[in-house]
Amino acid sequence: MDAIDIIVTKRDGGELTPDQIDWVIDAYTRGEVADEQMAALNMAILWRGMTRAEVARWTDAMLRSGDRLDFTDLPRPTTDKHSTGGVGDKITLPLTPAVAACGAAVPQLSGRGLGHTGGTLDKLESVPGWRAELSPAEMRKILADVGGVVCAAGSGLAPADRKLYALRDVTGTVESIPLIASSIMSKKLAEGTGALVLDVKVGSGAFMKDAGSARELARTMVGIGNDNGVRTVALLTAMDAPLGNRVGNALEVAEALEVLAGGGPDDVVELTVTLGREMLAAAGLEGAKDPADALRDGTAMDAWRRMIHAQGGDPDAPLPEAAESHVIASPASGTLTTLDAHAVGVAAWRLGAGRARKEDPVSPGAGVTLHAKPGEEVREGEPLFTLHTDDPDRIPRAAEGLSTCYTIDTPVDRLPLIIDRIA
Amino acid sequence: MDAIDIIVTKRDGGELTPDQIDWVIDAYTRGEVADEQMAALNMAILWRGMTRAEVARWTDAMLRSGDRLDFTDLPRPTTDKHSTGGVGDKITLPLTPAVAACGAAVPQLSGRGLGHTGGTLDKLESVPGWRAELSPAEMRKILADVGGVVCAAGSGLAPADRKLYALRDVTGTVESIPLIASSIMSKKLAEGTGALVLDVKVGSGAFMKDAGSARELARTMVGIGNDNGVRTVALLTAMDAPLGNRVGNALEVAEALEVLAGGGPDDVVELTVTLGREMLAAAGLEGAKDPADALRDGTAMDAWRRMIHAQGGDPDAPLPEAAESHVIASPASGTLTTLDAHAVGVAAWRLGAGRARKEDPVSPGAGVTLHAKPGEEVREGEPLFTLHTDDPDRIPRAAEGLSTCYTIDTPVDRLPLIIDRIA
Repeated sequence: MDAIDIIVTKRDGGELTPDQIDWVIDAYTRGEVADEQMAALNMAILWRGMTRAEVARWTDAMLRSGDRLDFTDLPRPTTDKHSTGGVGDKITLPLTPAVAACGAAVPQLSGRGLGHTGGTLDKLESVPGWRAELSPAEMRKILADVGGVVCAAGSGLAPADRKLYALRDVTGTVESIPLIASSIMSKKLAEGTGALVLDVKVGSGAFMKDAGSARELARTMVGIGNDNGVRTVALLTAMDAPLGNRVGNALEVAEALEVLAGGGPDDVVELTVTLGREMLAAAGLEGAKDPADALRDGTAMDAWRRMIHAQGGDPDAPLPEAAESHVIASPASGTLTTLDAHAVGVAAWRLGAGRARKEDPVSPGAGVTLHAKPGEEVREGEPLFTLHTDDPDRIPRAAEGLSTCYTIDTPVDRLPLIIDRIA
Repeated sequence: MDAIDIIVTKRDGGELTPDQIDWVIDAYTRGEVADEQMAALNMAILWRGMTRAEVARWTDAMLRSGDRLDFTDLPRPTTDKHSTGGVGDKITLPLTPAVAACGAAVPQLSGRGLGHTGGTLDKLESVPGWRAELSPAEMRKILADVGGVVCAAGSGLAPADRKLYALRDVTGTVESIPLIASSIMSKKLAEGTGALVLDVKVGSGAFMKDAGSARELARTMVGIGNDNGVRTVALLTAMDAPLGNRVGNALEVAEALEVLAGGGPDDVVELTVTLGREMLAAAGLEGAKDPADALRDGTAMDAWRRMIHAQGGDPDAPLPEAAESHVIASPASGTLTTLDAHAVGVAAWRLGAGRARKEDPVSPGAGVTLHAKPGEEVREGEPLFTLHTDDPDRIPRAAEGLSTCYTIDTPVDRLPLIIDRIA
């Protein structure tokens, strides 16, 4: 085997053989294939694409580069959700305990945020005492005891993907559907879930800006999951505007607590319940308790408190708040018709909620509160946004980005919250 | 400036700005842009191509990464030739002294061979005592005294290209016309020639297998040269069969000496004279002595002897010969209609004339003698090839490769030697 032959095959539009894929992933993980060779191959894959057989094998090779967790001996069936990431997407927070409260076990390995979308671990770390790093034994114990666990993926899971993702990030080769799909699915298959619901976001705040490419990504991932024996379903959901009314780490935990208490914004509740029902159905628990009931009757909140407690967190401790806040008032009265998710995400990031580089810290209290969502009425002079930050010097740039990110008074033309379902 | 932005711009089909090109070449040379980023950019360039403005700037940035020689103070005008490489292509050897004998100065920086085509420096190093490495001062003195010099390019010329070429070699990104053209032209512009004739080879033994891509490469290079004030002309010439009758280092020097003595194979003489006339015309020496006369009257041979002597070589010393030889006889009588250049090049390489890796030595005496060329009559049982090697174990594989590389008796359908002229 020779890396150059493999690069040239893909560059010239050919299909890689299973042996070539196995070899190149393994040799890259071991350092025998150089970063520059893998970067050239990734760009050729971005250019030429991959067949379904190639994507399946590529995913499988990354999966086999490390350990695969196994929870088949648990008394409950496992089911999980993965979101491709959006602004204000705190769904994992109410969803995991709600589904646990309905009888499934949710083994959720999450990540940290980079750029304008936040990471679930960053959000949970704003809960005093909570820790993301668990040993496999701790993860299993919490999953068995509580029915849900959200933690950091250990370095032993899909190490090839870890190395490859870092490379793609600096070589302009992130935006390849086969590479995105195989990266997500190798990690999700490694975490050992028996069923999987994919929340593929579409719109300005999402990685996929249009429904066509989101649908292609969804189909690719659903194919990989089902080919690997994991019952997989994908929903395409709207990310033209932020989810909920709060964007930022502790701000989103607070909003998740509203949902767990039976309230919260309609879109967050609807998406939580819809994804929860899909997760239960995919796990074969069609007759289980409804997640909407679990949110209403306090059992989801009970599961949340036990989850937080099991990972060292204090569910009763006050959440951190930013030192400074700044209100932006509406310049006009009328209907808020659009509110650009990406711009809100960037503003929250500039206020300190996100990181520019992996090693940067995040500010738990920083972010943006939205006082209106598209379709709602606003009045001139009343608050439209509240900016939260520990560093007032960050306010002007964040405010500037928000000043042109919405429209007032033209007819509403939003994407439906649930755009499509791909099974 | 940011390497990722530049990669993504090209990946998505955009045009790089002059500032982006200058920055990325400089930052890569300094090690600030990583190999994996440049590899991804090269694959994107291979995919998307480059505009004439981009290629010109890319070449210029590589040229500016190092020194540029200046021979404008010499009493003679400078002119040079570059060949894209072929099997049995020893044209530089008789051409440089012939053109020098006609009144121009030829500052030829050459390379070593890799793979199935030989390198001019490897050939000349089979002359006892001759050395390829000269200081810029030595190069200038020989050029002024003799009118021609063939030596290795110093590391100060186009260092960006040196680094980039090594990267392309291992990342499957060699086959990009803008990258090939800018690589060749940055080196040729750095050597300080005032005029340049490009010999772009077409056919199985050449890098460009078809006339269309060879013509595009030629046009790109002619554009770069003329845009940079170097009068540049390209000839597309045939490389379906080897040039001349000998392939291998000392074997080719011996054949060059036949040409310098007024004899030698017709194709080698024709190409030497044609390229020589173009070089003189490009240098503005239209009324100069004709290179054909210089070959006939011994003045080219005189220039050769002075060139070799000036670089420590003994023009009267016997050339090295391989320890073993092996004759392959013709299996039939008839007209030799085709003789595959690539296969002959590979056979010579297997016999020891070439190297597989940069650090390998070459065997000066190894190679192949051709007893017939396409269009000539052959007789069953008479010699078709003689194989020369220091290692008889290499003969079987070389002979095997030659056994299917020719055809006897079907109509002749060769490319004309000079296929096209692009000015």
